[in-house]
Amino acid sequence: MTGLQDKTGDMSGPTVLSVDAMGGDLGPAVVVAGLDRAATKSPDLRFILHGSAAELEKLVARHKQLKQRCEIRDAAGVVRMEDKPSQVMRNGKNTSMWSALESVRNGEATVCVSCGNTGALMALSMVRLRKLPGVNRPAIAILWPSRSPSGFNVMLDVGADIRADAHDLLQYALMGTSYARNGMGIDHPRVGLLNVGTEEHKGRAELKEAHDLIGARAAEARFEFVGFVEGSDLPGDVADVIVTDGFTGNVALKTGEGTASLIRQHLKDAFNYSFLSRLASLLAVSSLKRLSKRIDPRRVNGGVFLGLNGTVVKSHGSADATGVAAALKLAEQLAQTGFTGKLAARVASTALQPQDATPVDEETDT
Amino acid sequence: MTGLQDKTGDMSGPTVLSVDAMGGDLGPAVVVAGLDRAATKSPDLRFILHGSAAELEKLVARHKQLKQRCEIRDAAGVVRMEDKPSQVMRNGKNTSMWSALESVRNGEATVCVSCGNTGALMALSMVRLRKLPGVNRPAIAILWPSRSPSGFNVMLDVGADIRADAHDLLQYALMGTSYARNGMGIDHPRVGLLNVGTEEHKGRAELKEAHDLIGARAAEARFEFVGFVEGSDLPGDVADVIVTDGFTGNVALKTGEGTASLIRQHLKDAFNYSFLSRLASLLAVSSLKRLSKRIDPRRVNGGVFLGLNGTVVKSHGSADATGVAAALKLAEQLAQTGFTGKLAARVASTALQPQDATPVDEETDT
Repeated sequence: MTGLQDKTGDMSGPTVLSVDAMGGDLGPAVVVAGLDRAATKSPDLRFILHGSAAELEKLVARHKQLKQRCEIRDAAGVVRMEDKPSQVMRNGKNTSMWSALESVRNGEATVCVSCGNTGALMALSMVRLRKLPGVNRPAIAILWPSRSPSGFNVMLDVGADIRADAHDLLQYALMGTSYARNGMGIDHPRVGLLNVGTEEHKGRAELKEAHDLIGARAAEARFEFVGFVEGSDLPGDVADVIVTDGFTGNVALKTGEGTASLIRQHLKDAFNYSFLSRLASLLAVSSLKRLSKRIDPRRVNGGVFLGLNGTVVKSHGSADATGVAAALKLAEQLAQTGFTGKLAARVASTALQPQDATPVDEETDT
Repeated sequence: MTGLQDKTGDMSGPTVLSVDAMGGDLGPAVVVAGLDRAATKSPDLRFILHGSAAELEKLVARHKQLKQRCEIRDAAGVVRMEDKPSQVMRNGKNTSMWSALESVRNGEATVCVSCGNTGALMALSMVRLRKLPGVNRPAIAILWPSRSPSGFNVMLDVGADIRADAHDLLQYALMGTSYARNGMGIDHPRVGLLNVGTEEHKGRAELKEAHDLIGARAAEARFEFVGFVEGSDLPGDVADVIVTDGFTGNVALKTGEGTASLIRQHLKDAFNYSFLSRLASLLAVSSLKRLSKRIDPRRVNGGVFLGLNGTVVKSHGSADATGVAAALKLAEQLAQTGFTGKLAARVASTALQPQDATPVDEETDT
């Protein structure tokens, strides 16, 4: 990987995304509709689309602009939501998911996007793309709507692995920093470690160890370590990157989603309560739309798999065209900043023993 | 403990609550104002109030009805929010918190209520009230606003202890069942175990073991075990009682609070955006009030310490009079149902080896 590639992105010419069209809850028509939206916004974007060729050709034909910008790869098999990752790893060679990862593996595309089964996608990604040198556990990072200036915080891991030791948490901090820098344009991210209190004596032993490990790397890796943060800081303005194990992160993510969904339901009920309240909601329609846009989960659709030889964006299984387009936009940005290469350089440095570690070339990750 | 006591509650005559008036963020005036509200609603309620007698006498004098129903116990010391639990255990004998627990310990009051430092309150409660026979780790249970018929789910532990093994989780399930039955009137609660997926093969080893232990006790302890649940089920309608370790529970609780708070802020901003939106918010005022009432965190103020010889209700540190009154109402209900005795009987049965366990007398916990 040369310095030039790192600065300009991995691809020259158009950005190519590899898209698994099957396996989402709403079927390939929604994926192709999302592709069309993304294509309209980004004239340089190209796609390799994986799935049933007969079905996909018909769908792509409906969108004029996609015809020239989409290459279809026939794959008969589909990974279902209920399939076990181990089965897919053994018998999944003919699936659209496998095929989509293959295009990243062989360098035809920079980033893979799928709405399919998360566990299977992570297992296949580990086997086909392989872990980056120095990475013990890959992680899934998501964007959490927050009070931070960018409007979002990065949280990882949200469920790639239920365990994480202190060294894994350090790697998550470095990977999250690289993601915040390249995916969100935050040059000097604030990094926090999720715990049950902000005092240094609190929490599990591996968290105290991780606290020291992460703190020691802050200056060299150019992030600000804010120490322990709490669940309430996930939507807060204390840290841009919040690091935790995949068990805690997954529970927190689903808790936040469930809470937002319950409040949306209450809001709807409140304005449907009577004739007068329905009238009021008509008058308040622009305020409510503004609110709804800010808390719309489709706007932040896309968990990113970090720590692999290639970047994979996992779109929500039930994503509609707006959601798919958001995931594609994220994938495009990561492709254009040359994220995979920068992340690789960043974590490679953690493979060294701390006492031997030499600063990574500053150029690599800016 | 006789059957009669169990059915009518531990107290004969008026219900007496022991209240720590100091240590909350807003000071004793707010606590006394909350007392006044609770007293208005429940003519049989009596209070033992702990704190600076000089200060409390002045405050109580302002509320006519409290004079005859409040006994003041002078305690010069105050546990501050930043005090370490270990210091309070060593040097806290003169504090209002210590004194408030003492009234439960010596049987003058049934339930203790405090707005103070949670860690110190739990540590003091463990030392002064002691753990129930058969309980390894006490837990803190909270009510989570949900889609369940009662409007709330019980979650425990939210932070009494960052660890919990399979047997602790079984005890949490039994304690949570008893709380749901006596605190919320749910005769046959649905119990779920928090995990990162609902499939039985997922999650940490201790969770699989707990899954089997809890399932085996469901029929005899008269709850329905719904198996693994996810973070999104905390505000859902899948389980009435959700069991987890104190680390995960604390992160989930604070994540939910933080998410709700961010959305409330967005809602406020949306309606303050322009002159027209402010006008609309005036017209929508009753809808917004209805919503605000449903998501008002003050309505569910009160973590309950379970697994001790005596019940302790921890009110939020920043609770206002409405919040304090809600915590007192919860304490009153638990006192009147004879909750402490029923819980003790319920968990005592887990101290037996599973193969020796005999069903607890059905009368004890209904």
